[in-house]
Amino acid sequence: METHATTSRRQPAAPGEHRSLAETYAAVRGLTTELCRGLAPEDMAVQSMPDASPAKWHLAHTSWFFEHFVLEPYRSGYRPFHPAYGYLFNSYYYSVGTMHPRPARGLLTRPSVAEVLAYRRHVDAELQELLEKRPAPEAAARVTLGLNHEQQHQELLLTDIKHLFAQNPLEPAWRELAPPPAAPARPLKYLPRPAGLVSIGHAGDGFAFDNETPRHQAFVGAHTLASRPVSNGDYAEFIRAGSYREPRLWLADGWATIQREGWQRPLYWSEDMTSEFTLGGRRTLDANAPVCHLSYYEADAYARWAGARLPTEAEWESYAAGLDVGGNLLESGYFHPAGAADGPAQFYGDVWEWTASPYSAYPRFQPLAGSLGEYNGKFMANQLVLRGGSCVTPASHIRATYRNFFYPQQRWQFSGLRLAKDA
Amino acid sequence: METHATTSRRQPAAPGEHRSLAETYAAVRGLTTELCRGLAPEDMAVQSMPDASPAKWHLAHTSWFFEHFVLEPYRSGYRPFHPAYGYLFNSYYYSVGTMHPRPARGLLTRPSVAEVLAYRRHVDAELQELLEKRPAPEAAARVTLGLNHEQQHQELLLTDIKHLFAQNPLEPAWRELAPPPAAPARPLKYLPRPAGLVSIGHAGDGFAFDNETPRHQAFVGAHTLASRPVSNGDYAEFIRAGSYREPRLWLADGWATIQREGWQRPLYWSEDMTSEFTLGGRRTLDANAPVCHLSYYEADAYARWAGARLPTEAEWESYAAGLDVGGNLLESGYFHPAGAADGPAQFYGDVWEWTASPYSAYPRFQPLAGSLGEYNGKFMANQLVLRGGSCVTPASHIRATYRNFFYPQQRWQFSGLRLAKDA
Amino acid sequence: METHATTSRRQPAAPGEHRSLAETYAAVRGLTTELCRGLAPEDMAVQSMPDASPAKWHLAHTSWFFEHFVLEPYRSGYRPFHPAYGYLFNSYYYSVGTMHPRPARGLLTRPSVAEVLAYRRHVDAELQELLEKRPAPEAAARVTLGLNHEQQHQELLLTDIKHLFAQNPLEPAWRELAPPPAAPARPLKYLPRPAGLVSIGHAGDGFAFDNETPRHQAFVGAHTLASRPVSNGDYAEFIRAGSYREPRLWLADGWATIQREGWQRPLYWSEDMTSEFTLGGRRTLDANAPVCHLSYYEADAYARWAGARLPTEAEWESYAAGLDVGGNLLESGYFHPAGAADGPAQFYGDVWEWTASPYSAYPRFQPLAGSLGEYNGKFMANQLVLRGGSCVTPASHIRATYRNFFYPQQRWQFSGLRLAKDA
Amino acid sequence: METHATTSRRQPAAPGEHRSLAETYAAVRGLTTELCRGLAPEDMAVQSMPDASPAKWHLAHTSWFFEHFVLEPYRSGYRPFHPAYGYLFNSYYYSVGTMHPRPARGLLTRPSVAEVLAYRRHVDAELQELLEKRPAPEAAARVTLGLNHEQQHQELLLTDIKHLFAQNPLEPAWRELAPPPAAPARPLKYLPRPAGLVSIGHAGDGFAFDNETPRHQAFVGAHTLASRPVSNGDYAEFIRAGSYREPRLWLADGWATIQREGWQRPLYWSEDMTSEFTLGGRRTLDANAPVCHLSYYEADAYARWAGARLPTEAEWESYAAGLDVGGNLLESGYFHPAGAADGPAQFYGDVWEWTASPYSAYPRFQPLAGSLGEYNGKFMANQLVLRGGSCVTPASHIRATYRNFFYPQQRWQFSGLRLAKDA
Repeated sequence: METHATTSRRQPAAPGEHRSLAETYAAVRGLTTELCRGLAPEDMAVQSMPDASPAKWHLAHTSWFFEHFVLEPYRSGYRPFHPAYGYLFNSYYYSVGTMHPRPARGLLTRPSVAEVLAYRRHVDAELQELLEKRPAPEAAARVTLGLNHEQQHQELLLTDIKHLFAQNPLEPAWRELAPPPAAPARPLKYLPRPAGLVSIGHAGDGFAFDNETPRHQAFVGAHTLASRPVSNGDYAEFIRAGSYREPRLWLADGWATIQREGWQRPLYWSEDMTSEFTLGGRRTLDANAPVCHLSYYEADAYARWAGARLPTEAEWESYAAGLDVGGNLLESGYFHPAGAADGPAQFYGDVWEWTASPYSAYPRFQPLAGSLGEYNGKFMANQLVLRGGSCVTPASHIRATYRNFFYPQQRWQFSGLRLAKDA
Repeated sequence: METHATTSRRQPAAPGEHRSLAETYAAVRGLTTELCRGLAPEDMAVQSMPDASPAKWHLAHTSWFFEHFVLEPYRSGYRPFHPAYGYLFNSYYYSVGTMHPRPARGLLTRPSVAEVLAYRRHVDAELQELLEKRPAPEAAARVTLGLNHEQQHQELLLTDIKHLFAQNPLEPAWRELAPPPAAPARPLKYLPRPAGLVSIGHAGDGFAFDNETPRHQAFVGAHTLASRPVSNGDYAEFIRAGSYREPRLWLADGWATIQREGWQRPLYWSEDMTSEFTLGGRRTLDANAPVCHLSYYEADAYARWAGARLPTEAEWESYAAGLDVGGNLLESGYFHPAGAADGPAQFYGDVWEWTASPYSAYPRFQPLAGSLGEYNGKFMANQLVLRGGSCVTPASHIRATYRNFFYPQQRWQFSGLRLAKDA
Repeated sequence: METHATTSRRQPAAPGEHRSLAETYAAVRGLTTELCRGLAPEDMAVQSMPDASPAKWHLAHTSWFFEHFVLEPYRSGYRPFHPAYGYLFNSYYYSVGTMHPRPARGLLTRPSVAEVLAYRRHVDAELQELLEKRPAPEAAARVTLGLNHEQQHQELLLTDIKHLFAQNPLEPAWRELAPPPAAPARPLKYLPRPAGLVSIGHAGDGFAFDNETPRHQAFVGAHTLASRPVSNGDYAEFIRAGSYREPRLWLADGWATIQREGWQRPLYWSEDMTSEFTLGGRRTLDANAPVCHLSYYEADAYARWAGARLPTEAEWESYAAGLDVGGNLLESGYFHPAGAADGPAQFYGDVWEWTASPYSAYPRFQPLAGSLGEYNGKFMANQLVLRGGSCVTPASHIRATYRNFFYPQQRWQFSGLRLAKDA
Repeated sequence: METHATTSRRQPAAPGEHRSLAETYAAVRGLTTELCRGLAPEDMAVQSMPDASPAKWHLAHTSWFFEHFVLEPYRSGYRPFHPAYGYLFNSYYYSVGTMHPRPARGLLTRPSVAEVLAYRRHVDAELQELLEKRPAPEAAARVTLGLNHEQQHQELLLTDIKHLFAQNPLEPAWRELAPPPAAPARPLKYLPRPAGLVSIGHAGDGFAFDNETPRHQAFVGAHTLASRPVSNGDYAEFIRAGSYREPRLWLADGWATIQREGWQRPLYWSEDMTSEFTLGGRRTLDANAPVCHLSYYEADAYARWAGARLPTEAEWESYAAGLDVGGNLLESGYFHPAGAADGPAQFYGDVWEWTASPYSAYPRFQPLAGSLGEYNGKFMANQLVLRGGSCVTPASHIRATYRNFFYPQQRWQFSGLRLAKDA
């Protein structure tokens, strides 16, 4: 996945406040650059692996998104800031034109960070002028889409910087961060859920990506959902039981993956399982915090070992729909999963939760018209759905119907799991 | 996929006859060796790609399956025919032990074909003795499983030989075969299907693999199903429209695949789209026969181009359950898809039909106990379900609930597609 | 390397006898098929790695060589045996036409072994008729070249079969062979050699490949040459000293190679260094026999560890030119290196000896005219010269001027080393 | 190759002046940072391919070289600037310790450019203090070696930046550069050279790397050397003759390389052969300038096509030894090869000239003692020697005996060729 979408009629708003679209635009765009504070230009140019992009590329691509999908069609007389940026910063919209190859994004030392920031300022100024003039509804909807898109890239920017810094023997911190307070051990309970038809998917006024639609019914059997995500302590037990050497616990493709990659533990854990690399540098592992940076294969194997399974999308969403969005999201300032005392079940925030559901089209799904139809639909193969947002997801970005998706072998996102069982 | 399974209580029977398990055993096992008639020992030893296995390996592996899962536990005093065969001919049962690497199967010039045939005769003789003595129900169930397993390898043996011969500039024919009679063009109609809850999956007495269970309910929306598979003529039109050069028609992974592989047309078609390589050698392409040897990506792109979609498993099965098994199956002797006059909709036989459904566990799915639990369950990631059997599937092997599965990029099986539409 | 060449004026003759070209032809060609005695058709069809070729391919390619370079130009009215064989069995003669890709030789299950043997008989019959009619000198020269070419493929056929059988956990023997008699330990002495101008390279009447010409002068410094090749016992000491873990002993490319490949010992040695795989099956390692199946990198590292170096071509040849050809060559029937009692210094036979000399053109080298110019010259980059023949080299094939060549990482040939030192 | 060496007794001096070692140190070190003027920090951090290194890495590695090989042993009480820099900036000296993997140099966004420059200043200050105190002869010799090493990295820094910028669709210029003046066409003549013994290699007082020693005799036949390098115009004719499609002109490995890489022309040429990418941006191709950025395979194929060959090291050096060092070297300020009017034969400067000589040890070659022995000797396999320096080689760095070396497929250096013929 890179990013996903649907046009909408309402802007994302932080809980409890109402802002104009222009105010929201300024806030969301400002946060992206704020996340780069403290980074050296070099940090923002390098690509640590094909799955990741340089911070500078995220800054430029999100600006191009507004430029191409809003300014060009809706701001009369607008001319692109630079004739080559459409080629350089188009991510994957073939219907817009050809693009610079993804694995070569890290070779673009030019435009420099300074030039990219100038590009951002230019786009922002033009956008603000457009927004001041009561834009057409479709233009406003695309701005809202662009802001949700921007928020996705905020998360990616952080996961990509984390991955980059983890490759460096110096283990630089993104910034000095106070670790989350240590939490007490929290017993795992199973919440009972009855069988029946449930409705899932997005309907109504708020923003949602096209892949969350249409709302539809699905049948779920009686089951239970764990009262919290699987913790580092839980997962360490799984490792100590020899599970990375026991093929019977793994999907065939998962076993092949851990052999090929030499995986023995979650990404970023030290070999002795006492510390982990974080956005704040290396830290002691908190046994009670949710385990993070797992591939789907590892999540699936853990569940099998625990005599449980991963929940389906429908199971997850039908429960989470009854909860307020909240928890350890980006606004907490931890930028890392945290243990929690008794209380809410951490459906939102901390870690994206792998589900058992392949990322497929909902019944009667229709992608957005035109090039924006490439946002989500064409990725509906070979990926799995994750739910709930993470410690680097903005609160205004996540909701019960939100479908994130990654390939089963990917684990540089803040990805963990919650268990489920048939009742 | 290699092969799949569940133990059962009844043996497969060719339509219209009732045979003892011993008779069925003899018939099914005999057919496998009969399919090798005319092959040179060299043909039976070489592996044309990692997905394929040498014919000799199929002959040995299926024998090992009976030896390990039936003779060793149920025939008292049985000693393995050869101490190394368990290692050489175990396909993927890690709980049984380590195994020869799959991509290196073609390096096993020994045991020779003659030695493998001796192994088969030995196993057959021992099995027949066991069957004569009223075996325990579990033993009989495993024999039935082994025979269904054998039938899967009969199909694989043919697809693998076809692939091997296609690599040879001499284009050898597997054997002299009469081509199917040319069929008239058959207009495509769409069969209406109402919305509602349907039950799918296996229940009851007959044999089924574990992945077909348990029977459960699913909701399907109103839709239509095409009255026949997509034909060669249909698909040629898709190619001539430039579809292999149009990224908007393709899943992102599909587009990447056709670029990387340089695909321009179905496997085995000539560049000029007038002929195709078959088990009977090179032949003129029959525009009215079902198109075959497509990857999932190609099937999906065709459906999108045609303004349709692939059916789901539930849609396919709920319709097919009302039809008798029949059509151009292995017994027709064509070993190639054939056009059909008006009448049955070719749900069975001709080509395996890619569905839109990822290969996942049915709700409350439980794999078989013990090592046989590795038969199907561990492959439930990254693959898609195909339905209906093909021109090289034995009639006694296929049924409405049958779930075949392959990776989306694989196309050396007899794989085609049928269209569906939302109503 | 595959094979090499120059036309000549004299046929190779086994020591001590004089045969007609027709007799020699019959003897050499007959030996090739004799070497296949006992092989199953499967053994002769499979290709164990891109460097190796199936035995069947060797049989066919050598026949094509005679057909294309002798029968077509010199036998009036000759028509190729099969229209596709020129494509299938051309090795690397681009000026003749395109060819089947080398790594895909193992996919050619057809023509079958029986068909290839029929091809051989056909070519042999035609050749014998041509030879009976006093062929033109150039035709006779090409027959001689073809016979030397055939002998090169006899050696390759054996090394390729050995490699294939070594991949099989059953470790089949090529045939039952009496091991060479165990030899006593033989102290290593250094034979003094004065500085001066030496003449190397071929001149005169006998057959030589074009890469052995022209004879020319070279200056060599004062040096010494070891009185025997390095033995298994010597090499085991090098291993026990930890040399495969000490980068300072290795060329940079060598170190990278052993890391990438995981090499810890010579090809075919058991991990415990007590046995090795041979053409006669697994056998106890003879500490006094020459070490074999080394890459250039291993030979070079051993020499450095021993405080010595590899000899140059000029050093080797100027010494060996004074010795009679003899020793443990193919005719000994061991098909494996053997220790030797005091006496000759084993310059010929046992193992090909890696020299320090890159395989380059001799001054004023001219390749053969026409397509046969592709025989040797185009391989003069990235390879190193080996000298002296091996235990599977026919005695009539080797001479002091003979230049064999392989890539530094290749070690499936019977390749070992002899030490030299500056005096 | 990365860089090479021998200790010596004299500092390099620009022609016509005599400077103290401290002055030379300041000048050489200052030039390295001066070459980075105008580069953005991003430009200095990214690695465009495994063969290249980031500019920042060059700055740090050369400082580490002085720190490790001079300051640590010879400056009493010296403590390394940073404990991790020895790991990060050791290139390939295994005897010093393990090192950061070469292909991952571009992931080191930290230390930042600013931190690396501080490292340089620190090392420079310490070195100057050491030099002021009349260092021990071995210390002074190592400083001289370090300065020659630094000059090698100056050239690499420029070739690596050129390669990086060439990957960017914006085609940034390293800096604004005046193109060399266009030169008139210059007819190719062949300079006669007699047969005889020549002495090559370094002896005497001046600095040379260990691989240039010892001076020794070699026999060369009568031959001729071209009066100038092959020009762009010459090479364009070779291309237009279809040579990149004619396998008979190529070494076997060369043909495989151009097929695999899709090469059709020199690196940096436009497809229409009218322009090329230079350190000053894209420019019209000058037909009379020496052709540049060729692999050995291309140089070899051109020579074959032209009915000539590449000169050997001995041929080249024995002629060049009679010429003054001069021509289009770094000091010319062109940073690009240039055509020349009649006069000197451009043996020095413009382009490194591929020779026919594999990079091997000279007779009785001894690498430097200790870790510095890893400088050159371990690369003596699989590479070819180039002679004469290029347009980015400092004049004080090159001499007749200088042996540069690269792999035959590498062409991002300023590499061209001169023809030779047997007389």
